[in-house]
Amino acid sequence: MSEPPRGIQPGNGVDEYLFDPRLLERIVDIKDGIWVRPLSIEDYDKGFIQVLGQLTKVGDMSKEQFSERFRKMKASGDYYVIVAEDKNVGEVIASATLLTEQKFIHNCALRGRLEDVVVNDKYRGKSLGQLMVRTVSLLAQRLRCYKLSLDCKDTIVKFYERLGFIKEPANGNHLNARFDYESPTSNL
Amino acid sequence: MSEPPRGIQPGNGVDEYLFDPRLLERIVDIKDGIWVRPLSIEDYDKGFIQVLGQLTKVGDMSKEQFSERFRKMKASGDYYVIVAEDKNVGEVIASATLLTEQKFIHNCALRGRLEDVVVNDKYRGKSLGQLMVRTVSLLAQRLRCYKLSLDCKDTIVKFYERLGFIKEPANGNHLNARFDYESPTSNL
Ligand SMILES: CC(C)(COP(=O)(O)OP(=O)(O)OC[C@H]1O[C@@H](n2cnc3c(N)ncnc32)[C@H](O)[C@@H]1OP(=O)(O)O)[C@@H](O)C(=O)NCCC(=O)NCCS
Ligand SMILES: CC(C)(COP(=O)(O)OP(=O)(O)OC[C@H]1O[C@@H](n2cnc3c(N)ncnc32)[C@H](O)[C@@H]1OP(=O)(O)O)[C@@H](O)C(=O)NCCC(=O)NCCS
Repeated sequence: MSEPPRGIQPGNGVDEYLFDPRLLERIVDIKDGIWVRPLSIEDYDKGFIQVLGQLTKVGDMSKEQFSERFRKMKASGDYYVIVAEDKNVGEVIASATLLTEQKFIHNCALRGRLEDVVVNDKYRGKSLGQLMVRTVSLLAQRLRCYKLSLDCKDTIVKFYERLGFIKEPANGNHLNARFDYESPTSNL
Repeated sequence: MSEPPRGIQPGNGVDEYLFDPRLLERIVDIKDGIWVRPLSIEDYDKGFIQVLGQLTKVGDMSKEQFSERFRKMKASGDYYVIVAEDKNVGEVIASATLLTEQKFIHNCALRGRLEDVVVNDKYRGKSLGQLMVRTVSLLAQRLRCYKLSLDCKDTIVKFYERLGFIKEPANGNHLNARFDYESPTSNL
């Protein structure tokens, strides 16, 4: 991993990225002007927030809040947010996140978690969603995760099954407890 | 959070703990000699590994590997492993993990994940499992997680449902891709 990958222009520092772009080497390449790379601290102004807004509520996030979260994720070392940029327009058009969860079990293993997969609606149906998931999956293997897990709605199960994910027999339940900070009972 | 909680003896540094024990203040207390506290770097010799071994394969973890993983978790700041110690015998008898996953969505929210819940089989059926889950749930709220998620087998769904977790309609699927590093196709 001594040479910068083709997507990274010479002279460009890697400091702006959430993780070392060389980790994506030989996994993805620029194709048709679409470049898959780590999230950059510059992406706040490049449409990243708008893309996330097509997944769920993002809220009124300031650039400072974005940058602070970016730095905390980077400091932790467990967050690998990837984005696809359309170089023709200089905009982020898709995103997906790999979290490497540190375990004690399985010989201090890493468990990958695939989170927050989203493609800008103008770019859907062109296999970009697939590309993002495959990239995270290969990155998880490169980082030696023993498995990659995800939770999802019924309507999207097929999309993931076609990409190699399975609902394991008798072991495919995802449960949540939601907290409401407006309610007085949750005041500790 | 200026006073040490009752479980922490004066003069005891908090450095040995994975996270600040005061975060558990007013959540759990010593009762019947059972003390719920953060994982300590000393717990390798106190039965922590044996307890985890009742959950799944732990492997042949050396003290050095344990300490290294402990330090990495602590440096990340997102890992809250709690244990129950039976003070009568000085042994770890239960464990559960809260991971606070950093998000950009929902105003840079934290999503809690409940992982690796296990009670030593000699101590089961005495509500210790419940206590561990409730403690993680209250800690997640204290840390302002917007929800607490878990994945589990069919046989254990009821246990969690009674503790406030629900399988949300059309949104309760957990899928995995498992990686086999022995197979040549996974060599990147
Ligand atoms: C889900 C999503 C990422 C797919 O992105 P995309 O770029 O349109 O997907 P692709 O073009 O790679 O689709 C690959 C295949 O999966 C299928 N597919 C896409 N979305 C699907 C869905 N919701 N359910 C089932 N199949 C789906 C496509 O039809 C395609 O099949 P084909 O090869 O036979 O044409 C995108 O629709 C999206 O961002 N949705 C909103 C956010 C979301 O729901 N994210 C998932 C959170 S778990
Ligand atoms: C699951 C586990 C943590 C429960 O611990 P425990 O201390 O025995 O549980 P509690 O005494 O707090 O049980 C609380 C209630 O849940 C019930 N319960 C316990 N285990 C259960 C199970 N596997 N399925 C359904 N209900 C269960 C108990 O009967 C009890 O009900 P009651 O109040 O009517 O008597 C323990 O059995 C264990 O460590 N199992 C092996 C590891 C494991 O499977 N962990 C869960 C991974 S998702």
